[in-house]
Amino acid sequence: MRIRFDEQLELLNRKLIEMGALCEDAISASMHTLKNETDKQSAEKAAALEREIDHKEREIESLCMKLLLQQQPVARDLRTISSALKMISDLERIGDQASDIAGITGYIKDEQLKSGTHIYEMARAASRMVTDSVDSFVRKDLGKARAVQKEDDIVDGLFDTVKNELVGQITEHPDLSGECLDLLMIAKYLERIGDHAVNVAEWVEYSITGAHAGE
Amino acid sequence: MRIRFDEQLELLNRKLIEMGALCEDAISASMHTLKNETDKQSAEKAAALEREIDHKEREIESLCMKLLLQQQPVARDLRTISSALKMISDLERIGDQASDIAGITGYIKDEQLKSGTHIYEMARAASRMVTDSVDSFVRKDLGKARAVQKEDDIVDGLFDTVKNELVGQITEHPDLSGECLDLLMIAKYLERIGDHAVNVAEWVEYSITGAHAGE
Repeated sequence: MRIRFDEQLELLNRKLIEMGALCEDAISASMHTLKNETDKQSAEKAAALEREIDHKEREIESLCMKLLLQQQPVARDLRTISSALKMISDLERIGDQASDIAGITGYIKDEQLKSGTHIYEMARAASRMVTDSVDSFVRKDLGKARAVQKEDDIVDGLFDTVKNELVGQITEHPDLSGECLDLLMIAKYLERIGDHAVNVAEWVEYSITGAHAGE
Repeated sequence: MRIRFDEQLELLNRKLIEMGALCEDAISASMHTLKNETDKQSAEKAAALEREIDHKEREIESLCMKLLLQQQPVARDLRTISSALKMISDLERIGDQASDIAGITGYIKDEQLKSGTHIYEMARAASRMVTDSVDSFVRKDLGKARAVQKEDDIVDGLFDTVKNELVGQITEHPDLSGECLDLLMIAKYLERIGDHAVNVAEWVEYSITGAHAGE
C-alpha cells in the first residue's frame, strides 16, 4: 500500500514539474511576442500553452483528490497534497497572465516606446521568479523558496519605475497614449506573475515546514 | 455518522456564505474610497476585510480537508467540497483586488476625471456579479450561476470603454496622465473581480451538475 502511495506521490511530483515547465514556456512565448509584435506563431503558442496548462491543472487536481480519498494521508503527505492543490491554482494563473500578455503585445508597435521603459528587465525578473519557485519545489529547497519572496520586491519596484516612465512618455507623445496604457497592462500582468510565483514559493515553504510564510 | 457529516456540510455552507458576504463588504468599502478619495476609514475597512477574508479562507480549507480525510465522501458531496476549495481561492482574490483598489483610489483626486468615464458603472456591474455568484451558490440556482457568466461580457465591454475614455482624457489633459493610469488599474481590478465571480459561478455549476462549464 505504502509503495503504491509513494509511486502516486512521485507521479504528482512529476506532473507538477511538467506544469511548471509549461508555465515557463508560456512566459517565454509571451516575451517573444513582446519583443516582436508581428510574431503570430509565438502568440498562438502562448494560447495553446494556456490550454495545456489548464488541462494539466485538472489532471493534477484529480490525482490529488484520488490520493486524499483513497489513501487518507497524514501530516507531511497531507501537506504535500494540499500544497499541490493550491500551487496549481497559482501556476494556472501564471499561464493566464502570459496568454493575456501575448493577447495585447500586437497592439504595441512602437519599439522605442518599449525600449524607453524597463519593461524587458521587468519581464526577465518575473520570469526568473517563476523558474526559481518551480525549482525550489523540485529541489525542496527552502532557501530558494524564501529567496523568491525577496525577488518580488525587485519586480514591484520595476512596476513603479515602468509606470513613471510611461507617464513621461505620454506627456511627450500623447498620440501614443493607447499603446502606453497597453504597456502598463503588460507591466501589471508581469507584476501579478511575480505575485503568483511568491505564492508558489510560499506553498513550497509550507509543504516543507508545515508553517505558512509570514505567520 | 451521516448526520454528523451533514452538519459539517451545513457548516461549510454557512462559512462560504460568510466569506461571500465579506467579499461584498470589501468591494463596497473600496467603492466608497473611489467615490471619496479622502475616506481613510473605508480604506482601512477594505484592508481589515482582506485580512478577515484570508482568515476565513484558511478556516474553510481546514474544514474541507477534515471532511475529505475523515469522511471519505463520494460523488456529489465530494464535488461540493472540491468546489468549495476552488471557490475560496477566487473569493480570496476578490478580497485582494478590492483592497488593491482601495490602495490606489487615494491618488485620484480629480472628480471630473472619474465621472468623465464609465468607472462607477463598471464598479456597480462587477459588484453585482459577485453578489449574484454568491447568491447562486446560496440558492443552488443554476440559472443564476449561468447568468453571471453572461454579465461578464458587460464588465469586459465597460473595461474597453473606460480604457478608450482614458486615452481621450490623457490627450486633453496630459498633466493627469498619472491619475489616468491609476484609474486604468482600478478598471483592470474590477474586470478581474468579474472574472473571479465567473469562476465562482462556474464552481457552483460544477457542484450542481458535475460538469465543468464550457466543456
